[in-house]
Order: sequence, then structure tokens, then C-alpha cells
Amino acid sequence: MWSHKKRFYPSFIKGHDTELAALAKGIGEVGLVMSITAKNNGEGKPFLNMAVLIQNGLITNLQAKTNLATDTVFNDYRFYEMNHGAIVTFPYRGMTTAVLVCQDLWEVYDAAHGEHYFPRHPVSELKGKGVELLLVPNASPYYWGKGSARHEMVKNVVETLGCAVVYANYWGGQDELVFDGRSFIMNNNGVVVGAAPAYKDAVVVADLDGPAVTYHFDDGDVQALEDALVAALRDYTGKNGIKGVVFGLSGGIDSAICAVLAVKALGPERVICIRMPSQYSSQGSLDDAETLAKNLGIRFDTIPINDVYELYVKLLGSTIGFGTPTGAFDVTEENIQARARGNIVMAYANKYGYMAIATGNKSEFSVGYATLYGDMCGGYALIKDVLKMDIYRLSEWANHEREIIPRSSITKPPSAELRPDQKDTDSLPDYPVLDRILKGLVENFQGRDELVAQGFDPKVVEKVIMMTDRAEFKRRQAPPGPIVSKEGLAWLNRQYPISTKFRP
Amino acid sequence: MWSHKKRFYPSFIKGHDTELAALAKGIGEVGLVMSITAKNNGEGKPFLNMAVLIQNGLITNLQAKTNLATDTVFNDYRFYEMNHGAIVTFPYRGMTTAVLVCQDLWEVYDAAHGEHYFPRHPVSELKGKGVELLLVPNASPYYWGKGSARHEMVKNVVETLGCAVVYANYWGGQDELVFDGRSFIMNNNGVVVGAAPAYKDAVVVADLDGPAVTYHFDDGDVQALEDALVAALRDYTGKNGIKGVVFGLSGGIDSAICAVLAVKALGPERVICIRMPSQYSSQGSLDDAETLAKNLGIRFDTIPINDVYELYVKLLGSTIGFGTPTGAFDVTEENIQARARGNIVMAYANKYGYMAIATGNKSEFSVGYATLYGDMCGGYALIKDVLKMDIYRLSEWANHEREIIPRSSITKPPSAELRPDQKDTDSLPDYPVLDRILKGLVENFQGRDELVAQGFDPKVVEKVIMMTDRAEFKRRQAPPGPIVSKEGLAWLNRQYPISTKFRP
Repeated sequence: MWSHKKRFYPSFIKGHDTELAALAKGIGEVGLVMSITAKNNGEGKPFLNMAVLIQNGLITNLQAKTNLATDTVFNDYRFYEMNHGAIVTFPYRGMTTAVLVCQDLWEVYDAAHGEHYFPRHPVSELKGKGVELLLVPNASPYYWGKGSARHEMVKNVVETLGCAVVYANYWGGQDELVFDGRSFIMNNNGVVVGAAPAYKDAVVVADLDGPAVTYHFDDGDVQALEDALVAALRDYTGKNGIKGVVFGLSGGIDSAICAVLAVKALGPERVICIRMPSQYSSQGSLDDAETLAKNLGIRFDTIPINDVYELYVKLLGSTIGFGTPTGAFDVTEENIQARARGNIVMAYANKYGYMAIATGNKSEFSVGYATLYGDMCGGYALIKDVLKMDIYRLSEWANHEREIIPRSSITKPPSAELRPDQKDTDSLPDYPVLDRILKGLVENFQGRDELVAQGFDPKVVEKVIMMTDRAEFKRRQAPPGPIVSKEGLAWLNRQYPISTKFRP
Repeated sequence: MWSHKKRFYPSFIKGHDTELAALAKGIGEVGLVMSITAKNNGEGKPFLNMAVLIQNGLITNLQAKTNLATDTVFNDYRFYEMNHGAIVTFPYRGMTTAVLVCQDLWEVYDAAHGEHYFPRHPVSELKGKGVELLLVPNASPYYWGKGSARHEMVKNVVETLGCAVVYANYWGGQDELVFDGRSFIMNNNGVVVGAAPAYKDAVVVADLDGPAVTYHFDDGDVQALEDALVAALRDYTGKNGIKGVVFGLSGGIDSAICAVLAVKALGPERVICIRMPSQYSSQGSLDDAETLAKNLGIRFDTIPINDVYELYVKLLGSTIGFGTPTGAFDVTEENIQARARGNIVMAYANKYGYMAIATGNKSEFSVGYATLYGDMCGGYALIKDVLKMDIYRLSEWANHEREIIPRSSITKPPSAELRPDQKDTDSLPDYPVLDRILKGLVENFQGRDELVAQGFDPKVVEKVIMMTDRAEFKRRQAPPGPIVSKEGLAWLNRQYPISTKFRP
């Protein structure tokens, strides 16, 4: 019953092989190196992640991927067997050449830790083999600022092996993953002699003895984050045939950034924003929303929710006691408003074949400061892996040429405006503190003790941990969204239980 | 940067070790064998899944788990290294004894397939070592009917090794997983001489030469399915401190079964059902809902949604064209009703600290015949891994002593009642056909060609595959719910992309 044969669709492999054969037919003298899903004829999992050379109509196996990852967003072992053979070299156009698939290039870093996360050390195994050219096909998931680590790592490999490295990287969004491209060629002196842009197809022709080229590798600048989010949204909508996007524009900073990003990804004609005032909305927020929509040139509708909210309260009054002395205003009433808005946004999405965007940020998703089926409605949670303080950075960047987002959206105290005079800080620590705690808790796996040792107030730390754990059931139902940090909160990445009494 | 040390909370291991030490302190002469998370001092992943003997205050390592699973719901490799050492035997109270952790017992089946999914064969490695007693601690996720496969497997091991087997299994629900207990002791003649009930703590004392005991191992009878769902709901609510459950009672069979199961899990006093009629509700359904609620003795409220639905339509009319010649009735209007109901159910959940139950079944979840943020609202989707035809079986079983679910709920054609004279069969194949196609598609990884070869209408097969693929974005946002089949549709199990043009 554990036979692996039944846990994939045979037609997937059939289609894969058909496409590969068609590709091979069209390729002549110039060799194409890529990695494919090859049948594993040996023991173990059914497939190998195999780098092949396609040339003159022939497909030649070169090197199977050796080290397979099963952490963060990776789950290679689900279908793939590791390479149990050697790391080989072969002559190619007069150069001693080797191929390492993606992860296999990174092993050199682990040796530096004195810790062997992976069973083999492919780069080390190539030492002394006279490698002149190392070809590396990658589908290496992006995180903000990864470029500098990647550049450093390739430089180390060049120094270790004394060879040139061709680092070819997939680009585009795939559900929650983002791939940034930024392929480059580094010669054996550590000089980048060819480079592709981020998030674009490119043919890079380089002379290994040629001059250095300009190469933006993403060292964590805010533009790189914006580019990743825009590419993710563009690909998610494009790959799923979605006509446009719709969401509520509250006048706050989160929905404002979503509007800016959506317009960059899809153009203003494919973005609809809705203002949905209630009795708790401030005039300032309503004005800010309108100004932003005008600045972006997007369709902007207004649908007040006062009446529908009051009708819900009246309907529920007879059974659960709204409007009676026992029916005190609590999170119930707040959520009714958020969910009434969700219903309206989704009606737009349904009527127009558009996708709703959920506009919550990573700080909110962490502590659960969002309403399930309310402001969490949507096909894509565009900024769910971006901390609030980085939303501010994105906002300043959005305004760096001219004021797109009204100044007051950025400067006013954040509020959900679901009850009179509400502020986020009524329930949450100040965002600069919250974000630093979350960075430790989520991105660095620091628990209460480690965080308190850094000087944070124990009560605040405990509250943030408790809120983050309790919000897991909400995140489990959150829309997918691009992972752009080293550690996101999506299941694909974090895999944290809902039912647990453990607190980190 | 790939150092594994940072990807877990140190406090988890600290807490684990503290609890273990406390347990050891309390244990005297009677040996306790259990599996723990032990530090891996060798190369590889940070931990070993280690079976230990706790006796007279001492904790002794016995045997680390050898074969680690990374498919269906398993992801052992994320944190655990496999045992690279021998499968050992040791003397225990005069018997040559061995311990295999969970999965390691099952390997004997793979040899029969001539396919080695796992690198080692622990049972075979014990051959010729004179094992008399084999102890097997398990946390082996349940699927409906697993008992007979498990019983057969243990019997094979007993025959292969000529030893007695103590099969000890965890019981309870853990988020989407269910464990059924049903621990048993089989002597070296293949006779079950001791057995624990399902979903209950038990101390089983057995004489290996004693008589056979009665042992219900779950061969796929409907009671076993009901038990699994009841246990799952009881544990999910219990472990998360949820006071009770609430959901809409439509008069249809799915919400009816959820009500029956909820009352069995929590008692009638912790279940609230709401009838939410619209202009499209049939009087028959409304009456059936009321009769069922009376039969179960649960709180039953009625909140008509006509007015709130009409208000939404009016509000949206000015912007997206309801009520005008261009605003034809489509899925938008259907979803507004479902989401208005969702808002009401969630208001109850918020006000009372209850959890909403999403009442959709596996057939609906497969093809996306449910409204996101509408009838998919809830903390737990209790029957999301139960096909519609099995819902009928559960319904008949619920009525086997007296009529709880009104006969007409079972016999009437299924309908969402979101537009005049709607039937499920307007959009879907008949359920007997749909379910057989889904069993092939989802549970057996059969694609179009394999299904058509079985005699299904190609057009119907293609439609079901298309609908199932397109509904992945909905399932990604579905509440968690118990996996009770060999292959559920939850991400934990299926891991299917949203963005793909591939169709099986």
C-alpha cells in the first residue's frame, strides 16, 4: 500500500515528456541546459530533479540534484530521490564543465557553520576536478534582500573552485512563491560579466573575459520589495485568468499600498476600489481614500454600510441580545461591519470576474488583527508577509516622485475604525515594538525568554506570543499571498499547529 | 545560513525534556515504552524520533525511527533524521524484544509490491534475530477502514518474525488529523489477546497465552466513520477551549448530519442552529430543519435574510447594476445570500465564544459547490472529507434506532436554494456518478484518460476535473476539518497548486 506510483497523475509526466520532446526538436547547435523531472530507475522516490543538456535534438542527462530540502517552503522529498551518484564533470566546448541544480550550489555555506544540514557537499566534491565552467539552473524562491546573500555565495564558489559560474534563475510568481530572476554570469575572477534584469525574460550573452556589467542584486532596498509584490500579483492574476482586482479603500495605509501596487501590476483600468463608510468612519479617512483613487486614476465607488449594519443588529437583536442591556458592543459588532464590507467587495468580484485583494499586513496577520470573512476576504493577500513598518517604507517610496498617497494616510494613527475613536494601539503594542518582537518570534524562532532577554517588556512579549498563536486558525483560512521574507506565516512556510497549549 | 538550529523554538525542546523528566520520576518498576523527540548527535536533521524505555526513574534509548515519511499528511524529514544504525534487540523480562516506531512496522508491505518506497526494511532486518516480543508505539493517522489493513499488516509481521506484537496507538484529534487508538496485542499465533477501544484511554493487561478477545478493528462500517468525526470535533473544540458550536440548519442533509454529529460530540446544550430563510427557501426545508432541531433538543433560532439580501441588492444596484436590464441574476446574487448567512452565523460565534461549523461535504469541496465566506464560514469543516453518498449512509445510520433526521431531508433532491427551483444537478452530475469520479480523481490519482476508460462520459469527466482544479483557491481558504479518507483535499494532504494550466 505504500507504493509511490499512485500518488501523482501519470498524465503530468506524459505531458512533461511531450513538451520536452517538442522543445528538443526545435533546438539545434546552441546547447540548452535545464532541469527536468526524470524517472528514477533506482530505488527510492519516483523522480530525479535532473539537469539535462538539449542539443541537436538530443536530450542528455548531466547531473541529478543531490541535496533535497524539506524546510521553510521546500518539500523536495515528497516526489524526488536524491542523487546517490558522483558530482560529475564533462567537457563542453573545450571547457571542463559541471552542473549543480539550485540548492546544491549553497552547500558551501553550511560547511562554514560546521553543521551539515545536507548529507553531501557538492561544491566541495568538485574541488580538484579542474572545473572551469559551472552551470546552475535555479528556481530559488525570493526573499527580500536575498540578492546579496546569493551574490556572496556565488563569489565563494568561484573562489573555492576557480571557475566561472552561470547562475540562471527562474522568474515569476507561483501561488505563494516569488522568483526574482536576476540571473548572472560571474567569471573566475569574481567579476559579473553578464546579468539579466529582475522579473523579465532575457537572453544574456557574455564574454567571460569581458568587462564588468551593472548588476542590481537586491540588497534589501525598498524598490526590490515593491518589485517582488508587483510581480507576484501580476503573475497570480495572469496565470489564473483574472480580469482585474477589487478591494475596499479605507483611507488607511495598508489598502493604499495595495492600490499603488495593483495599479503598477495591472494598470488603473483593471483596479476598482470601494469606499464603504459606516458611522465609525472618519471624514479624514474617507477624503484620503478619494484623493488616492483620483491620484491613481482608478474607478472608485462609494457604498455606505450604515443601513446594512443596522439591519443586521436589528435582526440579531431578537436572538442574541443586541440593543438590550445584555448586548454590549464588542468584537461581534465590529466584525459585522467588516463582513458586510466583505460581502460587498465579493459581489463586485463575482459580477465582474475580478479578484478581491485582502489588504492586511504581516503585523496584523501575525496577531490576528483582522476579521475572517471580512477584511481578510480575497483571492490574494498581497501584503500579508510585509510588516507594518515596511508598509510605511513602501508608502514613502510610492510618494518619492510625487504625492500619490495622501500625507495624512501615512501620518495618522492607524485605526480599524470599527468603533468610536478606535486606535490599533488600543489592542496592540506600537508597531515599531510589535514588528521587532515579530521579527524575533516569527523570523528568528525566538520565544519569550529570548525576547525578554533583548529588553522587551515581558507582558508585551507574552501578549504578542499569545495573540500570534491564537490567530493561527485565522491564518489557516487566509488567502494565499506572496512570501517575501525569510520566514512567512503561511502554512507552506511555518507549519504551526492550531491546537496546542505550547507557547514559544 | 542553512543551519538547522534556528528553525524551531528552543523552549519547545526544553519543555519536552522537563515533562519527560517529571514523567520518569513517577515511573517505577513497570516499564513504559514511548517515543520522544531526542537530540540527534550525529549528522543531519536536529532530532531523532526515539523510542525509549522509562523504568525506575531512568530513560533508556531503545530504537530510533528508521523510515521517515514525506507524503500524504507526513513530513517527518522536516525535523527528524532517520536512524542510520541497526535495528536492535534487547532482553526484557526474559524475552528477546525489539521496538519499531510506527511507520517502521509497515515496510513489510512494500516488499510485497517489489517497490521500496523507503530505504530500509526494519521488519526484514529483524528476521533471524529470535525476536519474541515486538513493541510498536504509533501515532498513525486514521482513515476510514484503515483497521482491516492494519490488522492484516500486524498479522503478516507476526507470521514473518514469529513474535508477539504490542501495537499501541495514539487516539484523538489534532487539527486535521484523527487518531483512532484501537491499540491491541497479538500473540505469536496471530490471536488478539488484548485490545483497547477506539477513542478512549485504556490500560490493557494481557496474557500472551490467554484467550482471544473481542476486537473491533474498523473494516469500513459507517459507525466507524461517525466515531471518527465525533472524536475529531470533540477534540478540536476541547483542545481549543471552544464553548460550543453554531451553524445554519437548512433542512438539507449536510447540515443535518453536522447537527447529529455535533450533538454526539458536545451534547445538545452546546449546539445552536439557525434557520435563515430567504425568498428562495422551500417550506419543506424550513419545516425539516425545525423538526430535526426538536428531535435533537438543540437551541434553534430563526432569522430571515430577505430584508438584508434586498438591502444589499439595492446598495449595489447603483454601482454594479442590480435591478437594471444589465444586472441579470447570477452567482453574485446567490453568494450575497450565502454570505449574509455567514455574517449571521459568525455573529453568534463571536457573541457566545462558539465556533461556526462549515457544513459542506467532500463532493462539494471538490467541485467548489460552496460559497467562500458564506456556507464555507467556520472554524471547522466537519464533513469536508466525506463524500455525499457517504453522507447519505451516515444519515441512514443516524436514523437506525428512531427517526432523527426527517425522512424528507434524505429523500428530496439536494438543492442550495439560492435561486428559484434550483437543484444541485443543475450544475453537477448526479452524486453517485460524481462521487465515483472523485474517488478516482482525488483518492486514486486517475486523470481524464483513466476515468474515461472506466466508462464515464468524457464531457462529465472533463467538467468534474475542471471544476475540481478551479476550486483549489476556495479549498485553500476552507476551514480545517478532519481527514478521514486515504486522500483528502486539504493542503496538508494533497498539495496541489492553484496556478496551473495542467489538468489531470
